[in-house]
Amino acid sequence: MDFEKIELAPTADFHVHLRDGEMMRMVVPTIRLGGVDTVYVMPNLIPPVTTVEAAKSYLARIQPLAPDVKFLMTLYMTESLTPEIIDDAASAGITGVKVYPAGVTTNSQSGVVDYESFFPIFEAMQRNDMVLNLHGEAPSTPSGNFIASEKAGESAVSVLNAEKLFLPTLHKIHNAFPKLRIVLEHCTTRDALDAVLKCGPSVAATITAHHLWICVDDVCGDAFNFCKPVAKTMEDRVALVRAAVEGGNGKFFFGSDSAPHPVTAKTGVKKAAAGCFTQSCATQLVIGAIEEAVAKGWISREVTAASLEDFLSNRGRKFYKLPEHAHGRKIQLERKGAKVPDVLKNATGDIEVIPFRRGEDTWKLTWK
Amino acid sequence: MDFEKIELAPTADFHVHLRDGEMMRMVVPTIRLGGVDTVYVMPNLIPPVTTVEAAKSYLARIQPLAPDVKFLMTLYMTESLTPEIIDDAASAGITGVKVYPAGVTTNSQSGVVDYESFFPIFEAMQRNDMVLNLHGEAPSTPSGNFIASEKAGESAVSVLNAEKLFLPTLHKIHNAFPKLRIVLEHCTTRDALDAVLKCGPSVAATITAHHLWICVDDVCGDAFNFCKPVAKTMEDRVALVRAAVEGGNGKFFFGSDSAPHPVTAKTGVKKAAAGCFTQSCATQLVIGAIEEAVAKGWISREVTAASLEDFLSNRGRKFYKLPEHAHGRKIQLERKGAKVPDVLKNATGDIEVIPFRRGEDTWKLTWK
Repeated sequence: MDFEKIELAPTADFHVHLRDGEMMRMVVPTIRLGGVDTVYVMPNLIPPVTTVEAAKSYLARIQPLAPDVKFLMTLYMTESLTPEIIDDAASAGITGVKVYPAGVTTNSQSGVVDYESFFPIFEAMQRNDMVLNLHGEAPSTPSGNFIASEKAGESAVSVLNAEKLFLPTLHKIHNAFPKLRIVLEHCTTRDALDAVLKCGPSVAATITAHHLWICVDDVCGDAFNFCKPVAKTMEDRVALVRAAVEGGNGKFFFGSDSAPHPVTAKTGVKKAAAGCFTQSCATQLVIGAIEEAVAKGWISREVTAASLEDFLSNRGRKFYKLPEHAHGRKIQLERKGAKVPDVLKNATGDIEVIPFRRGEDTWKLTWK
Repeated sequence: MDFEKIELAPTADFHVHLRDGEMMRMVVPTIRLGGVDTVYVMPNLIPPVTTVEAAKSYLARIQPLAPDVKFLMTLYMTESLTPEIIDDAASAGITGVKVYPAGVTTNSQSGVVDYESFFPIFEAMQRNDMVLNLHGEAPSTPSGNFIASEKAGESAVSVLNAEKLFLPTLHKIHNAFPKLRIVLEHCTTRDALDAVLKCGPSVAATITAHHLWICVDDVCGDAFNFCKPVAKTMEDRVALVRAAVEGGNGKFFFGSDSAPHPVTAKTGVKKAAAGCFTQSCATQLVIGAIEEAVAKGWISREVTAASLEDFLSNRGRKFYKLPEHAHGRKIQLERKGAKVPDVLKNATGDIEVIPFRRGEDTWKLTWK
């Protein structure tokens, strides 16, 4: 990785929060600034996207804002879903269904408590070759339930072990539906990466840009590094960087989990909203993180443009059965001459979003 | 703990940040609101209190603001200290020396890197029967040092394991100076409590009010729950509550680590300053936390006023060789009728401090 300038296929970002309304109108046009031409769209609007009609209508609102971007749509797993809706969704070209455990992150109040009750849905998804996207965290143990877990000899669940304690659920679903394509989203731990490697080829994982940059020390006290799952230890961070470059037999690919919040939801006296906004520098932040990892000796200097492209684009497109390059255009990255913006504002100036690594040097990206 | 109203000896708070200047003038008068008549004063001013003269002068600034409170003064461990200064400090009635590992918390930039180089100071302290107060955290591993720790087969240090990885240093100092009274400050883990129990009777530990209330889930995304050491798991929180009540053979007593920060240092875009402000409700918050622990079954309902008083007052006074009650007055707590303030402001309104558990119901405290 001694190059000053590289050309890559456009990035495919397989985990993106675009929101709705004014925020959506601000965020969607930043997708291509981050070198991305393909976006997998999360369904956690308020109310969540739970019907084919709602997904179509959402796409109709997004697409005009970025005509050159390919959007892959998802539904939000709730009790209102039926196998028939899954059949219809597959016919309508909806790619996947996202499962949020109830209450663990932004707009997950409608999420899942009991996975087995959704097995008929998973069955229909497997039959239709749809993708199941898992937010892989067990809900934290309420303080009132502590004694029960202590008596059972179980660890209480906190934000630190929530991902690890979700992994048996991943294996259970995978064992029950071995052909169902499953993505364990935004992995933050070596344990999660190992679990995905142990599964069959139908199970993959996304890795975000921000988890390549931070660990839990950076989260405590810094609202702009706070996301769910929270970043873990340095060992985990390094494992993620290595997994991104090494690829895990095609299993590890990029999904930014970019999540815009108005600055007012991140600062002030109330608890901060969970999520890091990386969209406008998605590719640049990944390249920068890997560059730093090379500089620090975490990975070999032999990182090539091809291995970067594999993480950012090829592996994910293959898992999602997309053509290799959506449009044939390329993105070019240069080592110097750009900074992450301090803030993004919408046209009327009433929404401000502060990006992850605001104000820091980053790679310069241009479309070719 | 079924009482609605209890009378206790005034609380002795063995770890307090009073700051200086305008902030000090605001904070010191809140000490008695928290039911406290004895305060162990931290020396991490800017610049730190490193001379007998500076400690005397600091006391002269504090004492007029709360004439009824007993202040115990400390020095800040730096390379400028000498055994002669320790002798002078002991003669001048300075009680202890606080060690901050370099860089781990607010105003610790002048802190300690190599403990062995301070052994002549510890020797002089032991000879003078002064108390060594340890901020028990190993500094986090810089990202550039990760490969060295990996090659050595060592865990990288993060805010999560920093306290545990400090414990060998505690044992080393204790073994070298078995008669030196040592306080491992603001313990956050069961590991730390266990380590203190394993030491001889010269080693004790303080427990804060806020660590009885929160775990790491409450820290991530909430600047007002962010302090160093950061709160850990539910298991650790429950272990702290139990240790406070059970007492650890006299080793576990109260030190709030109350640390006021202007609201501007806690909110906004920059990383938040570390510290929770609990001074004005110090006793109330402890009683409330133990009440909650009883309600949740973490400890038996047999908690008595005597055991609360042991934690809040008696054990610490005994370890510090103080008379049992400084003034003979009592504090009365009633279960209902008070709230933690939303904010504290100084007279001119230019400093605002937001307390821990702002706006929540708490016990009502009156002096008898």
